[in-house]
Amino acid sequence: MVNLQAQDRVMGKGRMEGFSDGVMAIVITIMVLELKVPHGADLDALRPLLPSFLSYILSFVYIGIYWNNHHHLIHAAKKVSGGMLWANLNFLFWLSLFPFATGWMGENHFEALPSAAYGFVLLMAAAAYYLLQRCIISASGPQSVLKRAIGKDWKGKLPPILYISAIILSFQANWVAQALYVSVALIWLIPDRRIERAIAAAGS
Amino acid sequence: MVNLQAQDRVMGKGRMEGFSDGVMAIVITIMVLELKVPHGADLDALRPLLPSFLSYILSFVYIGIYWNNHHHLIHAAKKVSGGMLWANLNFLFWLSLFPFATGWMGENHFEALPSAAYGFVLLMAAAAYYLLQRCIISASGPQSVLKRAIGKDWKGKLPPILYISAIILSFQANWVAQALYVSVALIWLIPDRRIERAIAAAGS
Amino acid sequence: MVNLQAQDRVMGKGRMEGFSDGVMAIVITIMVLELKVPHGADLDALRPLLPSFLSYILSFVYIGIYWNNHHHLIHAAKKVSGGMLWANLNFLFWLSLFPFATGWMGENHFEALPSAAYGFVLLMAAAAYYLLQRCIISASGPQSVLKRAIGKDWKGKLPPILYISAIILSFQANWVAQALYVSVALIWLIPDRRIERAIAAAGS
Amino acid sequence: MVNLQAQDRVMGKGRMEGFSDGVMAIVITIMVLELKVPHGADLDALRPLLPSFLSYILSFVYIGIYWNNHHHLIHAAKKVSGGMLWANLNFLFWLSLFPFATGWMGENHFEALPSAAYGFVLLMAAAAYYLLQRCIISASGPQSVLKRAIGKDWKGKLPPILYISAIILSFQANWVAQALYVSVALIWLIPDRRIERAIAAAGS
Repeated sequence: MVNLQAQDRVMGKGRMEGFSDGVMAIVITIMVLELKVPHGADLDALRPLLPSFLSYILSFVYIGIYWNNHHHLIHAAKKVSGGMLWANLNFLFWLSLFPFATGWMGENHFEALPSAAYGFVLLMAAAAYYLLQRCIISASGPQSVLKRAIGKDWKGKLPPILYISAIILSFQANWVAQALYVSVALIWLIPDRRIERAIAAAGS
Repeated sequence: MVNLQAQDRVMGKGRMEGFSDGVMAIVITIMVLELKVPHGADLDALRPLLPSFLSYILSFVYIGIYWNNHHHLIHAAKKVSGGMLWANLNFLFWLSLFPFATGWMGENHFEALPSAAYGFVLLMAAAAYYLLQRCIISASGPQSVLKRAIGKDWKGKLPPILYISAIILSFQANWVAQALYVSVALIWLIPDRRIERAIAAAGS
Repeated sequence: MVNLQAQDRVMGKGRMEGFSDGVMAIVITIMVLELKVPHGADLDALRPLLPSFLSYILSFVYIGIYWNNHHHLIHAAKKVSGGMLWANLNFLFWLSLFPFATGWMGENHFEALPSAAYGFVLLMAAAAYYLLQRCIISASGPQSVLKRAIGKDWKGKLPPILYISAIILSFQANWVAQALYVSVALIWLIPDRRIERAIAAAGS
Repeated sequence: MVNLQAQDRVMGKGRMEGFSDGVMAIVITIMVLELKVPHGADLDALRPLLPSFLSYILSFVYIGIYWNNHHHLIHAAKKVSGGMLWANLNFLFWLSLFPFATGWMGENHFEALPSAAYGFVLLMAAAAYYLLQRCIISASGPQSVLKRAIGKDWKGKLPPILYISAIILSFQANWVAQALYVSVALIWLIPDRRIERAIAAAGS
């Protein structure tokens, strides 16, 4: 039966990955439906869409970053526990709110409350990702590759601070909030190579 | 030819699982499109969305539960019969009505008829899941792991009673209906470990 | 290199199957978006949706049938040619028009032209499926399992005649057209076991 | 550890392919949502949709072509680098704008600016595809199969020139722009067999 159980774990991981990829592919694509096709055919009809378009790019990059890092994260997991499944669904829940938050912020040209709401969704997605990470580490034991990989996680600790600052600043100067959202995306744009390196180190 | 037939069965199961995962990933994600982006940018614009948002969370959890249990169910199947394919499609049909039922209940702030309709969709999805389970057990023979796993299925028998109660109570006190829908979700939130345990027992 | 080429063919087939499944899963699920959530919360608000709901069920069954048969069809293919890829995309194109045709027929309560248009989409999807089948047979050579499986294809020849009759009859008595659409679905509801049988026969 | 790392690369490639296929399947299918179901049930209600329908066919063929060629491209990649992941996401970003560009052009009956915007999206998608190709070649080294396969790439160099011409000509004679978009699709309709041939040559 050992063989069957090993296969069971691999399948579970593959299916969780497949389902998550499906949700992320759909989220990243249906966001474009919030870019409402204008009725006019001139530049005046296109201009009011600019904030929506910029929000769309920002969210596309964020989902891309999460997809990329999620890939490395799940790869580091040894087995799929019930807790991991729900931590993963919680993470996908917050990603699923991206089209709404992006559309609201874009349609209202980065006004205070929609900007803060967008920051809140980013913050919760980051918190959910962190929870999922903890879940995978605790399931893999204290010697896990992932734990060593993350180590002194300044890259994981900085974004929440920046998101909270952005949420507060949305009500004073909303362009600062936008600048912070873009900054966090730039910080994360470099894929999470720490995990790759730790795996390589464990192998040498 | 034995080899080919064995491969055939595995592929069929994998593809049925993949298609089901695809449909569930789409259902869970397009539900968010029923959260219509408000035109205003203040709290007054957001407030009427609260019931829709709560309905969305509830349905997200339900689809998550079904996805999770469906995974264990299909895993227990030995082969894919024509009946199983259609029992599975019937199950997906009722899941596909979640965005409609969720949107209608949310937009009408949990009024009587939409609440009852939501309960009806939950009831039919549960019945379809039960049918799919019977299909898999009958295809696997009386000694099936799944049959032993489910055994005295109080967890499967309670929800229909609660759904029917909720449908009736929708017209008297709709908050009781909501409370029942939330309760069933909480009952199911614990993944169906009975199957896992029975597999482990069969292996020892 | 023989090994790589063999793997290449398998991958191509798997990816074509995966892409087709993705499109079919999306088509079957986004059709529900044409069931517009009504604003009212009583039966009067729901009643005008009945034709849309019936159309939705019919189309759901049709996509289910096509998904099921497509599975057997691709399974019988030995390799993926460029022609097959395009025959498959042509088939998916006509399936992708189902949400539009279903929505139009449902919203207009089975009126003449929308009923005929629905029949036209069904007819073209059937023709595209037939073309894909020819493509796979011609790529597999005259001794192909699939060719023997299909043999005297009354089940493939009847639907086009019924669809064309239905399109013409839409303008005289649209309920006859609907009855014919339902009849063809019932004929196809039994999965295409001829292929399975021929494979089994080839193995004995 | 060599084994694990090899498996790692294969999984990464498979997942990147799966995610890309998911996005392309969703893009090709949600485009149909821009074909708004008309309220009337006669030919007069359908006629204004003709340009939208023609745009839909054109975009469907384009996504089909990209899906087909992307398949061969990724297949030629030896490993997945961080740069490749982002080059691929950039490519998917431009594909994700197809529903918007298609809908805008169709709804405005091929007017100047929407036609030019459609050409711009086509141009950027082609540029993104080219970048992805360069990325894969540079990761595979100067002796890569892909590099030899592409060689004197007249088929890759012609479309950008035609797209830019079409964008400019949109403002003088928009039917010429449409004719050019259709022409490029016809050029590409033949799948990229150069890669297949080079792989075969490398094997002999």
